[in-house]
Amino acid sequence: MTTTVLLATHNRKKLDELRRILRPLVPDVKVLGLDDVPPYAEPAETEPTFEGNARLKAQAAVRHTNLPSLADDSGLCVDAMNGMPGVLSARWAGRQPGRPREYELLLDQLADVPDERRGAAFVASVVLVLPDGTEHVAEGRLTGRIAREPRGQGGFGYDPVFIPDGESRTLAEMTPEEKDAISHRGRALRRIAPILAKAAAERARG
Amino acid sequence: MTTTVLLATHNRKKLDELRRILRPLVPDVKVLGLDDVPPYAEPAETEPTFEGNARLKAQAAVRHTNLPSLADDSGLCVDAMNGMPGVLSARWAGRQPGRPREYELLLDQLADVPDERRGAAFVASVVLVLPDGTEHVAEGRLTGRIAREPRGQGGFGYDPVFIPDGESRTLAEMTPEEKDAISHRGRALRRIAPILAKAAAERARG
Repeated sequence: MTTTVLLATHNRKKLDELRRILRPLVPDVKVLGLDDVPPYAEPAETEPTFEGNARLKAQAAVRHTNLPSLADDSGLCVDAMNGMPGVLSARWAGRQPGRPREYELLLDQLADVPDERRGAAFVASVVLVLPDGTEHVAEGRLTGRIAREPRGQGGFGYDPVFIPDGESRTLAEMTPEEKDAISHRGRALRRIAPILAKAAAERARG
Repeated sequence: MTTTVLLATHNRKKLDELRRILRPLVPDVKVLGLDDVPPYAEPAETEPTFEGNARLKAQAAVRHTNLPSLADDSGLCVDAMNGMPGVLSARWAGRQPGRPREYELLLDQLADVPDERRGAAFVASVVLVLPDGTEHVAEGRLTGRIAREPRGQGGFGYDPVFIPDGESRTLAEMTPEEKDAISHRGRALRRIAPILAKAAAERARG
């Protein structure tokens, strides 16, 4: 029996990533995105933590669709910025027309920060809310450093300027499979997958 | 006898501000800016603290001019940004043509941050280095909150979006005298002024 789960996002790249990661872990899972369900008023991301924002989004998704719903909130935490952009990563460059890409602004902001203080971590929090109200949370983290120049065409967001520990390539220079194996979101999703599989099995039993 | 002090900045508004503040405190002081002395290679602001960057600038100024030299480093520390923009305040919006004003970007970044989490502080560190190598440091702080919309034509930088504690106006809606009386830089400079006056008196004697 197919299990349907909603990922509370409009971002096709996040959906593709989740499908790639869940497929081997949760057989017969069908992942919908917010463009696949009737539209509803989505909550603003007003919380100070990734987990808080992911929970807001997953709870709203269950409330409006009654589907098992996953939401992630994630971002780049830069040491020299006391952990920012953090929960503000997605809107770091603002909303004005002609704004730079997020990673371009970040490189400009960090231009005078020397190599030894360019440490950073990608952090993802994933919250699964089931129709009965049960909540599960998982976090994933990938540590590394901020490059001096963007490199690579893969990935999205800040990937072209993030070099994982032990690597010389940026995340955007890796294949999707290489990225999934180490990424913050991959790690968080692999932690939540067994819970989703168990919930699916219980649903199948009725 | 006139005492000459160099403020290591090209910013005319900072010079005017320093002159206004020092005039009643250090009689006969003459304040020069970096545009009034032969140009030299100024250090990049590579330090993680206001004090560290102010020290770099003041030490370089003494080394190149042999004048008693003041430098300030200051910025806006936003609670919901873990204290950033902080030392990166002056380059927060990057360097690209067509970039927004610093405070416009900040308002965009904080658009989803609710009123109860909009606390912030302006912090200034002032370092005085004398030709004999003696160093003095003073810090000033002004706490308040980030407005929803810019207001006022006075001041500079983030003043139009900063509302000091106990005020309903932004810093940019105050007169220069009102601002100096409470501002972070005013507080830091008033702490360093007696040291400058004492150094001036010793120079006059010696």
